[in-house]
Amino acid sequence: MMNRYVRLNIERPEKAFVKEFMDYDVSTVYEAQGKIGLLNYDLRPIIEGSFICGPAITVTCMAGDNLMIHAAIEAVQPGDVLVVSTIGESHHGMIGELIARALMEKGVQGVIIDAGIRDVKQLRKLGFPVWSKAIYSQGTTKNRGGWVNAPCVCGGVQINPGDLIMADDDGVVRIKSVNIETVLELTKKRVEREKIVKSKIKNGELSIDFYNLRPILEKEEVVYIDFFNVNV
Amino acid sequence: MMNRYVRLNIERPEKAFVKEFMDYDVSTVYEAQGKIGLLNYDLRPIIEGSFICGPAITVTCMAGDNLMIHAAIEAVQPGDVLVVSTIGESHHGMIGELIARALMEKGVQGVIIDAGIRDVKQLRKLGFPVWSKAIYSQGTTKNRGGWVNAPCVCGGVQINPGDLIMADDDGVVRIKSVNIETVLELTKKRVEREKIVKSKIKNGELSIDFYNLRPILEKEEVVYIDFFNVNV
Amino acid sequence: MMNRYVRLNIERPEKAFVKEFMDYDVSTVYEAQGKIGLLNYDLRPIIEGSFICGPAITVTCMAGDNLMIHAAIEAVQPGDVLVVSTIGESHHGMIGELIARALMEKGVQGVIIDAGIRDVKQLRKLGFPVWSKAIYSQGTTKNRGGWVNAPCVCGGVQINPGDLIMADDDGVVRIKSVNIETVLELTKKRVEREKIVKSKIKNGELSIDFYNLRPILEKEEVVYIDFFNVNV
Amino acid sequence: MMNRYVRLNIERPEKAFVKEFMDYDVSTVYEAQGKIGLLNYDLRPIIEGSFICGPAITVTCMAGDNLMIHAAIEAVQPGDVLVVSTIGESHHGMIGELIARALMEKGVQGVIIDAGIRDVKQLRKLGFPVWSKAIYSQGTTKNRGGWVNAPCVCGGVQINPGDLIMADDDGVVRIKSVNIETVLELTKKRVEREKIVKSKIKNGELSIDFYNLRPILEKEEVVYIDFFNVNV
Amino acid sequence: MMNRYVRLNIERPEKAFVKEFMDYDVSTVYEAQGKIGLLNYDLRPIIEGSFICGPAITVTCMAGDNLMIHAAIEAVQPGDVLVVSTIGESHHGMIGELIARALMEKGVQGVIIDAGIRDVKQLRKLGFPVWSKAIYSQGTTKNRGGWVNAPCVCGGVQINPGDLIMADDDGVVRIKSVNIETVLELTKKRVEREKIVKSKIKNGELSIDFYNLRPILEKEEVVYIDFFNVNV
Amino acid sequence: MMNRYVRLNIERPEKAFVKEFMDYDVSTVYEAQGKIGLLNYDLRPIIEGSFICGPAITVTCMAGDNLMIHAAIEAVQPGDVLVVSTIGESHHGMIGELIARALMEKGVQGVIIDAGIRDVKQLRKLGFPVWSKAIYSQGTTKNRGGWVNAPCVCGGVQINPGDLIMADDDGVVRIKSVNIETVLELTKKRVEREKIVKSKIKNGELSIDFYNLRPILEKEEVVYIDFFNVNV
Repeated sequence: MMNRYVRLNIERPEKAFVKEFMDYDVSTVYEAQGKIGLLNYDLRPIIEGSFICGPAITVTCMAGDNLMIHAAIEAVQPGDVLVVSTIGESHHGMIGELIARALMEKGVQGVIIDAGIRDVKQLRKLGFPVWSKAIYSQGTTKNRGGWVNAPCVCGGVQINPGDLIMADDDGVVRIKSVNIETVLELTKKRVEREKIVKSKIKNGELSIDFYNLRPILEKEEVVYIDFFNVNV
Repeated sequence: MMNRYVRLNIERPEKAFVKEFMDYDVSTVYEAQGKIGLLNYDLRPIIEGSFICGPAITVTCMAGDNLMIHAAIEAVQPGDVLVVSTIGESHHGMIGELIARALMEKGVQGVIIDAGIRDVKQLRKLGFPVWSKAIYSQGTTKNRGGWVNAPCVCGGVQINPGDLIMADDDGVVRIKSVNIETVLELTKKRVEREKIVKSKIKNGELSIDFYNLRPILEKEEVVYIDFFNVNV
Repeated sequence: MMNRYVRLNIERPEKAFVKEFMDYDVSTVYEAQGKIGLLNYDLRPIIEGSFICGPAITVTCMAGDNLMIHAAIEAVQPGDVLVVSTIGESHHGMIGELIARALMEKGVQGVIIDAGIRDVKQLRKLGFPVWSKAIYSQGTTKNRGGWVNAPCVCGGVQINPGDLIMADDDGVVRIKSVNIETVLELTKKRVEREKIVKSKIKNGELSIDFYNLRPILEKEEVVYIDFFNVNV
Repeated sequence: MMNRYVRLNIERPEKAFVKEFMDYDVSTVYEAQGKIGLLNYDLRPIIEGSFICGPAITVTCMAGDNLMIHAAIEAVQPGDVLVVSTIGESHHGMIGELIARALMEKGVQGVIIDAGIRDVKQLRKLGFPVWSKAIYSQGTTKNRGGWVNAPCVCGGVQINPGDLIMADDDGVVRIKSVNIETVLELTKKRVEREKIVKSKIKNGELSIDFYNLRPILEKEEVVYIDFFNVNV
Repeated sequence: MMNRYVRLNIERPEKAFVKEFMDYDVSTVYEAQGKIGLLNYDLRPIIEGSFICGPAITVTCMAGDNLMIHAAIEAVQPGDVLVVSTIGESHHGMIGELIARALMEKGVQGVIIDAGIRDVKQLRKLGFPVWSKAIYSQGTTKNRGGWVNAPCVCGGVQINPGDLIMADDDGVVRIKSVNIETVLELTKKRVEREKIVKSKIKNGELSIDFYNLRPILEKEEVVYIDFFNVNV
Repeated sequence: MMNRYVRLNIERPEKAFVKEFMDYDVSTVYEAQGKIGLLNYDLRPIIEGSFICGPAITVTCMAGDNLMIHAAIEAVQPGDVLVVSTIGESHHGMIGELIARALMEKGVQGVIIDAGIRDVKQLRKLGFPVWSKAIYSQGTTKNRGGWVNAPCVCGGVQINPGDLIMADDDGVVRIKSVNIETVLELTKKRVEREKIVKSKIKNGELSIDFYNLRPILEKEEVVYIDFFNVNV
């Protein structure tokens, strides 16, 4: 009834688009696409300064069991990002050195996991980036069915297989595959706008002026007072 | 009615005192001033090994809105520390690269924020130290009034504009501006006492002896037992 | 009535065994001994890449008081690991530079503490590894009795004095002193098995095959579907 | 680009099915449909003993803003359950007496909200059941666009408009609209099985026997020992 | 240096005003005074349906010590509300049956405490309302100095002695003593406005209309779509 | 190696002692035995006003699996308290109506569980008291070995089979079986002392006097100041 399944083949976004996105970062893309698609802030990178950007291979495990991650290894391709979620909360260390090596052999860029990981010293040495909720050796079983490449909820965001996942020190963002082209355009525009802002800042202009925020202060009845004369 | 305001001018502590404090650290000052003024431990630095010490420019925003941070940029001076609190809990990324650049242009030492920040990779590259509750790209609006340089509560501690703020790897401490001279004296004395303790430790003396703690153990009915003979 | 005591002498595991364990890591040992003995994941190292492995000197303090840590310094020997727990939850900074120096003078490898620590910058400079629940300057008193080298609960696990404690980037594990020899054997066997798995992975074999997981997928009614033809 | 919208008309499950589900409870349905669809346990009822079961009207708000809840009132029909989620974490009190009265006028059964609520005394007096993450007066703005009757993620579970939502003291479960008939069948079967189990228990039979768990204990190498003779 | 003190006499707001406030509730007053003064939502009542409203007697204790609460009993008068905060986080059960009885003898209405309490069964039987962060038997010492009737931070809000404190099922709000008259006026006006809203709701009017929110939806580019024809 | 076992027979404390303890409560006993043995405050009762007091039958499960609870049903006797802990953190609903009925048939008083439970409405109707960390329908497997009547850590406290467990609205306390007689004496004495304190309070005496706390205030340099004359 539950239609548990493994989909080995999914549609991935065009590589040219993915490559272009690699010039940007999570906060910029999240803002550009309308402040949506950001995963919870408790997903943190194990390697500072990491950056990955690629199509999602989604895995849905039952809490405390990593059977479906093993099944997913067959589905990954170079450049993919493995996105792991669980049915039921979990901080188990679902991925360690062995699975990481298998994923690296296949060319996977990294892992986003709404649970724990382990062998973090080895993963750092291997240079394999992971964003996780915890570092925890707690082991899993390998005997409960789930899904590979079904829509899943990871970090509070729905992720479909083939959606573009970008992750850096700020966190993780999802770009829906159908929106990739539009979001890329919006991202480029945002970066242009930010360049102008940066030069204004360098010239000593105040954001309260160039964003025209003084009328808002006024509307909000914020008054300017003088410390020495006014006693509030 | 709520008297929302911006105070551009505040009284800052004498620079000579601030400079002297730069030889010390958060834990020492906190202890020296009587175990008060310490902000909550969930405010953590984004750059390991950072140290800042300067007068507080206080900002009170409504949760999820950073309008007043923009207003505060006009109020800061070189050496200041921006202290941001929110009315209502918030993990929003209220400060990113652009605001950081604006603050750096003005000579601000760093930021203490009881909310989230973003563009953490860029902030690290810029070497701009921030103590925050979260790293989170979640964006803010810019349209709700609040306060600049009003007394605020940040990390559970009341901070007035012009109070001295010190932050390092241990966390953040507030020294009330009226107490600066006294606390400086107490800090120096404490450091002297600690030097003596360090040399005692180097000589192999036990703290239980040089702090005279054995009578307390006795009063607390702590007995010394021999593992091999006594079965408790 | 509460039988508060200090035991200065405990039985420690044979050094040869301890030395052999130093070739392994927390996750491996935890798994090898049957997925038990792992402390809570909120105990995190202050120095990335640290590794310690030695007999536990256990300290039980009343929350907010570190009197018994001072008493414990008399009981430690080179190679020991200080394990600190509290009666009542605590994030107080119970250990700082002074106690750390005293422990280092005595040759202690490091500290596991189910509470907070402070002077973390100095501890990092000294290279003294600590696993703690928080970094917090919050000071303690020194006047409440407790226990040194009594059985304690640290990170949710019962630890007896003389148990072997191993800690690395993955967390902290306890090996009961009575099981040391057996666990060492099991650990070695596990490492051998993992070597074989690593070479299989390098040869491109799938874990779903060499762990024989396909029958489990089948039993769990996980079906393989084709993205392009099947609409679920 | 973000396609923000309000859908006033959705397809609801057949009333006969919904009515039949009213004889069951959350835990039973969750188990019957294969241990899926359960919302996070931090969503708790404000009125002990409440029970609701009806089609989801989904609302997606920006954190701290309840504009879209106002828009949703136009879309609800008698028997509906309002499901509110936010983009960005939120504990704001997004619903109070006024909105509750408006929903009651329209015949809405209750609300599931992945944020806070307020006026809880009045809601209890009105007998209007709500499952929320917090009780918090913190107010919202009414000026940010979002979605009504778009797929949303609430309590970590994806909910589509028209999905069946059941909530009681145990929490909240989602039954996908496409599965309603099947899940109803499975639920009935489960209840039948549980009746048999209850009568076995009443007859003093042990679950370890009637579930045939002794062989599993054996496989797991669990031995029966005698307290008085065996020292482990 | 820290100026620890007990102030036995404070200025309290006029009783007539306090009495008038008793017709209102926390959420209404919080909104009326401009969405400020609300304590954190983790302060919850131990007795459902409780309501208190009176001048704050403030107590600042060191975490884990309740000496100053004993000192405060001398300062309370009939109708007062005891507000307890701690320097350093604490969940200790700082108040139990004995202190509650002493406060009741003096006519204190209830307690707001940013820590834990105990003897909750007895407090419920006595009908003594308390808002606290935890129910926890964990005992305190009685030997560390602090403050009675100094400004304090409780639940993230600064409270001065003599400020008006109101608490109900929604939480706790502070009305600054200097603002009492103004806030009372604003509260009355708000209640009038809400009455009109309630009657509109009863008449079946939509809040999206009477709040004039449709133009905002439009500005936010929220479109109305038809489920059956539009595929987004 | 792990010595997984079930002990069907344990030594229980004398019934006369257990009966005598039933006149007291958790906070009193915890204080009387020297402020030890108190479980974490996140273990909360599902039925307000519940009280249980009886010998512990201890169960140690692997997180997410309740096999050993089924095994434990064979070991319980009338008046027992089932104490359930897990290896690895867990909020799973490990106990529901069926297990509760089985335990009630056997005369078990109630359950202390460091995880979740479900069917809470039914348990309340049955009047079966449970102290748990969460209410969560999340199901368990029944196939992983553990322990019945081995020493376990529950709520941060070590509990041996046969220890006396008392639970009420304040939480849960463990009295070690070897100390029962002594703790009973100490409890009686404490209650006598509290009676005297209560009568002093009724007579209007101040605790600061009858506990002789004024010298401590003095030692702590707490001064009495007059609000109207002194400006601090």
